Amino acid sequence: MYHHVKQLMYTVKIGDPDPRFGNMLLEQFGGANGELAAAMQYSVQGLNCDDPELKDVLMDIGTEELSHLEIIGTLARMHLKPTKTSRKAAEADPLVAIAGGGGVNLYNSQGSAWTADYLKVSGQPEVDLRSNIAAEARAKIVYERLIGFTDDQGTKDALQFLMTREITHMKAFMQALDNLGKGPLEIGALPPTPGLVDQFFNDSTGEDQYGAADKTPAWAVANGFKLVDSPAFHPQEMELDGPAPARKAKRAGAR
Amino acid sequence: MYHHVKQLMYTVKIGDPDPRFGNMLLEQFGGANGELAAAMQYSVQGLNCDDPELKDVLMDIGTEELSHLEIIGTLARMHLKPTKTSRKAAEADPLVAIAGGGGVNLYNSQGSAWTADYLKVSGQPEVDLRSNIAAEARAKIVYERLIGFTDDQGTKDALQFLMTREITHMKAFMQALDNLGKGPLEIGALPPTPGLVDQFFNDSTGEDQYGAADKTPAWAVANGFKLVDSPAFHPQEMELDGPAPARKAKRAGAR
Amino acid sequence: MYHHVKQLMYTVKIGDPDPRFGNMLLEQFGGANGELAAAMQYSVQGLNCDDPELKDVLMDIGTEELSHLEIIGTLARMHLKPTKTSRKAAEADPLVAIAGGGGVNLYNSQGSAWTADYLKVSGQPEVDLRSNIAAEARAKIVYERLIGFTDDQGTKDALQFLMTREITHMKAFMQALDNLGKGPLEIGALPPTPGLVDQFFNDSTGEDQYGAADKTPAWAVANGFKLVDSPAFHPQEMELDGPAPARKAKRAGAR
Amino acid sequence: MYHHVKQLMYTVKIGDPDPRFGNMLLEQFGGANGELAAAMQYSVQGLNCDDPELKDVLMDIGTEELSHLEIIGTLARMHLKPTKTSRKAAEADPLVAIAGGGGVNLYNSQGSAWTADYLKVSGQPEVDLRSNIAAEARAKIVYERLIGFTDDQGTKDALQFLMTREITHMKAFMQALDNLGKGPLEIGALPPTPGLVDQFFNDSTGEDQYGAADKTPAWAVANGFKLVDSPAFHPQEMELDGPAPARKAKRAGAR
Amino acid sequence: MYHHVKQLMYTVKIGDPDPRFGNMLLEQFGGANGELAAAMQYSVQGLNCDDPELKDVLMDIGTEELSHLEIIGTLARMHLKPTKTSRKAAEADPLVAIAGGGGVNLYNSQGSAWTADYLKVSGQPEVDLRSNIAAEARAKIVYERLIGFTDDQGTKDALQFLMTREITHMKAFMQALDNLGKGPLEIGALPPTPGLVDQFFNDSTGEDQYGAADKTPAWAVANGFKLVDSPAFHPQEMELDGPAPARKAKRAGAR
Amino acid sequence: MYHHVKQLMYTVKIGDPDPRFGNMLLEQFGGANGELAAAMQYSVQGLNCDDPELKDVLMDIGTEELSHLEIIGTLARMHLKPTKTSRKAAEADPLVAIAGGGGVNLYNSQGSAWTADYLKVSGQPEVDLRSNIAAEARAKIVYERLIGFTDDQGTKDALQFLMTREITHMKAFMQALDNLGKGPLEIGALPPTPGLVDQFFNDSTGEDQYGAADKTPAWAVANGFKLVDSPAFHPQEMELDGPAPARKAKRAGAR
Repeated sequence: MYHHVKQLMYTVKIGDPDPRFGNMLLEQFGGANGELAAAMQYSVQGLNCDDPELKDVLMDIGTEELSHLEIIGTLARMHLKPTKTSRKAAEADPLVAIAGGGGVNLYNSQGSAWTADYLKVSGQPEVDLRSNIAAEARAKIVYERLIGFTDDQGTKDALQFLMTREITHMKAFMQALDNLGKGPLEIGALPPTPGLVDQFFNDSTGEDQYGAADKTPAWAVANGFKLVDSPAFHPQEMELDGPAPARKAKRAGAR
Repeated sequence: MYHHVKQLMYTVKIGDPDPRFGNMLLEQFGGANGELAAAMQYSVQGLNCDDPELKDVLMDIGTEELSHLEIIGTLARMHLKPTKTSRKAAEADPLVAIAGGGGVNLYNSQGSAWTADYLKVSGQPEVDLRSNIAAEARAKIVYERLIGFTDDQGTKDALQFLMTREITHMKAFMQALDNLGKGPLEIGALPPTPGLVDQFFNDSTGEDQYGAADKTPAWAVANGFKLVDSPAFHPQEMELDGPAPARKAKRAGAR
Repeated sequence: MYHHVKQLMYTVKIGDPDPRFGNMLLEQFGGANGELAAAMQYSVQGLNCDDPELKDVLMDIGTEELSHLEIIGTLARMHLKPTKTSRKAAEADPLVAIAGGGGVNLYNSQGSAWTADYLKVSGQPEVDLRSNIAAEARAKIVYERLIGFTDDQGTKDALQFLMTREITHMKAFMQALDNLGKGPLEIGALPPTPGLVDQFFNDSTGEDQYGAADKTPAWAVANGFKLVDSPAFHPQEMELDGPAPARKAKRAGAR
Repeated sequence: MYHHVKQLMYTVKIGDPDPRFGNMLLEQFGGANGELAAAMQYSVQGLNCDDPELKDVLMDIGTEELSHLEIIGTLARMHLKPTKTSRKAAEADPLVAIAGGGGVNLYNSQGSAWTADYLKVSGQPEVDLRSNIAAEARAKIVYERLIGFTDDQGTKDALQFLMTREITHMKAFMQALDNLGKGPLEIGALPPTPGLVDQFFNDSTGEDQYGAADKTPAWAVANGFKLVDSPAFHPQEMELDGPAPARKAKRAGAR
Repeated sequence: MYHHVKQLMYTVKIGDPDPRFGNMLLEQFGGANGELAAAMQYSVQGLNCDDPELKDVLMDIGTEELSHLEIIGTLARMHLKPTKTSRKAAEADPLVAIAGGGGVNLYNSQGSAWTADYLKVSGQPEVDLRSNIAAEARAKIVYERLIGFTDDQGTKDALQFLMTREITHMKAFMQALDNLGKGPLEIGALPPTPGLVDQFFNDSTGEDQYGAADKTPAWAVANGFKLVDSPAFHPQEMELDGPAPARKAKRAGAR
Repeated sequence: MYHHVKQLMYTVKIGDPDPRFGNMLLEQFGGANGELAAAMQYSVQGLNCDDPELKDVLMDIGTEELSHLEIIGTLARMHLKPTKTSRKAAEADPLVAIAGGGGVNLYNSQGSAWTADYLKVSGQPEVDLRSNIAAEARAKIVYERLIGFTDDQGTKDALQFLMTREITHMKAFMQALDNLGKGPLEIGALPPTPGLVDQFFNDSTGEDQYGAADKTPAWAVANGFKLVDSPAFHPQEMELDGPAPARKAKRAGAR
């Protein structure tokens, strides 16, 4: 069950409304990396989760994101309110102005409706947590960019609060992932094919007109990758079914 | 520039076509975690990337995913081909049967069109790489599930190949991320608010009807989190603008 | 701010899982008339609302719908869980099975992602409340249909609870609308054109092959409508700018 | 069968084209509350309708909305035509300019494609009519806002015509609903749970930073609602399965 | 202005309803190549068209497609009606059954909502007519496939009627295109770059595992194409800015 | 298998970045008629194609379009790069600025995500080739319009290259269609109903307010069409099941 307390988690105060900035803020209200996406991703993962401790973390953070949704929505609405009556302001976001009467809705900065296609919910803890870490990283950089596009101090303060919490959640998801006790490349139960898993295919070669060249990264070899150069032209160098003669024999036999 | 070599990267052979399984395979052809999503995510990130070494890795892997798209598409088409002529088979995927004449298209297992909303492209290397690690983890688990739903050995072999490569790419992206030399919580340039960043909000409390209770994870405290219990009811315990009197004073003054 | 209490608002218990019915339940989880749509429609309207009393009603009901989202999601997941391991069950919802590992996500019964295009948020109280009354009526009939498609008593009980609450909310929105004190046809501030507003255009004529004929409803005339028959062929009978000579003169002059 | 008469239902004349206003007009051409949405919602409901009288009303109004679609499309095209040749005008709607050569298409003011997700078609007359009343109310307020954003008299006149007809249709749908002879809360056939249906859950409490407080509306109690305060924390006060001991016994027994 | 005559253009009669076939029929009601797509593509093109003769053809055919929409919708509804009450039938199309009460809506056979993204409206007659020819060809083949999946004679007859009309329209659009008097490769006003326009890039080489090899089509050379083999590896053979020294000089100078 | 060569097919150089023009260029990157749509339409058709020669043509051109995708993406990014740091530039495309950090993604000029609904893939060669001819015509006119909206010579040159290649591909698809050896109205295997196929229904009559009148095109009669005037009002003149008494008898008998 949910309960709502009217007090906003962060008190939003702005100076002069800036409708074009308000429109930009919608990225974090109804956009791909925004607060509804975060709230729904974690809450739905939590609903599906069989591990009570992980479920609790997911519900804690999913619920906090709902509180953030209110903050960013309130902030965006303050900046967009002039679109209700000013023709010039309305041009900053015609959808908000004409269809919404100056009120926000779950659309992004270019009027695309929020969609559950933004969500990553796999039903597998070590996968979901990686999706969540990435989601928090994206949300963090978006808040940083928004802060860079406004001079309004009250707006900056609210965005700084929201940005900070993304790092908090990123840290929590990283710890929850560590706590699962799985190896860094251990996803699910089936092992990858030995040999093949360590081949790096160099599929992009040459040099472009702006100086970017084919650079085999030093770390690749240092970390045990075996390079296969231009496999489209040297297909036999790929160990498709692994290196062991036994496996190759098995494969030939199976067909 | 791209060049196409007609030979498939992995030779796909199947026994009896299984149209309902062919329909499931579309998840990896035109679905959210499928090969087109991977190919486009990495290739577009690569196109935007200013770091030549990272750009090369992204283009290498993005290109390989295009080769995988061919494999999974060929495999799905083999299983779906009977939908062209058999009414019973057609019921397994009416869209493929009626609109596609038994041929595949970029739709998922329930006929939703592939959309760029599946992609995560942020223009920030340490963010994109986390999105890619998560994407590979999702693709890996999906292949594992597909393998579990078929008994056809040729199909299993091809899926095992594709599943293995997801781990390869996951490892490469993890190394590329390490190679950036940024801290594990360092995203972009703006620092989070001290104090606030270490507060964990316990927003979900009590016990559900199935035994799941409010479990403060041991790791949270062990790793330096300070718990705030039910902040909706104890808002004063949140360090919204950080702990320092100086900052609080600044904030009061700014308004 | 939101707070989450782990106890579900209604204790969900089912007998044997029925994956195809679980798939149908997704209509009320991630579908057009479902609980997320209700929660978001009312909560976003509430966020935009300047009238404190109406805002409170919208937030009360919007929050309750979040609690319902948990119930229907839990119920759907119970019925869909076998899709994780059973091939036959997986065919009932391949997207849940393959991408979700048997867990639910915000998709409808045919795998279409939830979209904010389902929402009706106008920023005008007498409009939003009518949208809400209609939304509750739709949700009620959907629950009724779901009840008709299952024999499982625990499932029926939970759906009966959710169905009942739609009527509760419908009643509350009707009272809130009455309480605004506006006339039944009073929307916004601009009056419609007199005369024209009372003309009913009979644009569909004749009789179809199944016996449906052109039936001018008795109520139309009884309630003051003036019929215009086949206006495409008698355009002069439409009072396009109203009946008054003064208005017609004004219009001619304005051009 | 449909027949088209080339004469527009309302003669559209404009002064100077205003491309940014033309873009706004697209809300009523290809937008969520626009004329295509109205035409399709009523016509598809009519196609499904078994009651010949109601079917006729739905087809009459659905057909009129097609005539309105022509009007608003013609009006929008007149304002958008300069986007074909003027770079500055093209910036008002790049999609119309680049993809459409200055011609309109079924997109809204921010370029989102029209989708049938906008439609509400339930197959139940007392539900569909409520959806239609709400749809007309939304369209009315949108036309009112558009009128407020232009000074062009010919444009205002055409919009006034279209706005007026929304009220006409709203009135017709209200009368058709009355004519069904069902109670104001009677939807479908299954009755709601007594007792529970009259409980209002106060799920949003406290006071926000802008003065909005928890206001139990006087009408709620006056109209027979029994308030349950903060049910997340007092779950036992909810009459989940109704008040009668008989029902509770039945429920316990059924499990 | 539109007028609706209740008589269907083709009398639809079916034997036993076949819900799974009814679901397939939705491809031509709310699907990508269906009657609404045709009606809207031609009608919107007509609305934008400045050539009165072509506009008339577009409106004639666009209007006929609305009449076809009624036919296919009526046919689909007859086959889908059992989904309202039969659980087994409901499984054939849960969206129609649960959300629509057995009535059709503008969704395709897998429940994806109709979208204006299906439409091709360019504002250029020689382009639009080619899009229409292709659209009619697609609709024809879809009807042919549907006919192949049913044994019901009444259904077959109705589909044969609709299929025939696609050929009629295809022929009309081909004649309208001829009538424009433009060359077969003349699109718009700007000429392509000479030389380059006649180079065919052989970008796919080798042989696949199933016997498909690199086959330079005889017609290519016979019709004046100059082949460039594997241009990714022989970029200098592409005449990027045309063959004339004058142009190359111009280009070098311009930078 | 795909291989990527880093050199761009066409060297892109621009003068001063023009962010609003960069936004327009996205139509050809992630828009409906853009390079990804072309690449995917042809490549997926090729994957489904059983005719080795046609498959090769489809893969050749599909692969070339991937190379074009790189070019237009690079060009758009050059023009959009200032959106990363300039607030004014960011207003030209807030989605690119805020979510993408100045990098491109697969969205069109108004931020709508690329969708496979843009694709036309029918599994029937004579249909697919017509869809491809139309697609190339659309892409050509879009490039022409883009050229008209910029004065930057380097940009114009790159767009001229891309525009030229559309004509090349259009010509190749036309020749491939001719090469199939089917009649100009021969689609699939089922013949249309004789008589009916040659009737042209005049469904749009009268004259509009701007001078457009009902113009029976001379070519229609000249090419063998028999006109049926206003069939909604003269249904008996339509030869619904063909002209032959034998067929009519058959039809009557079948029911």
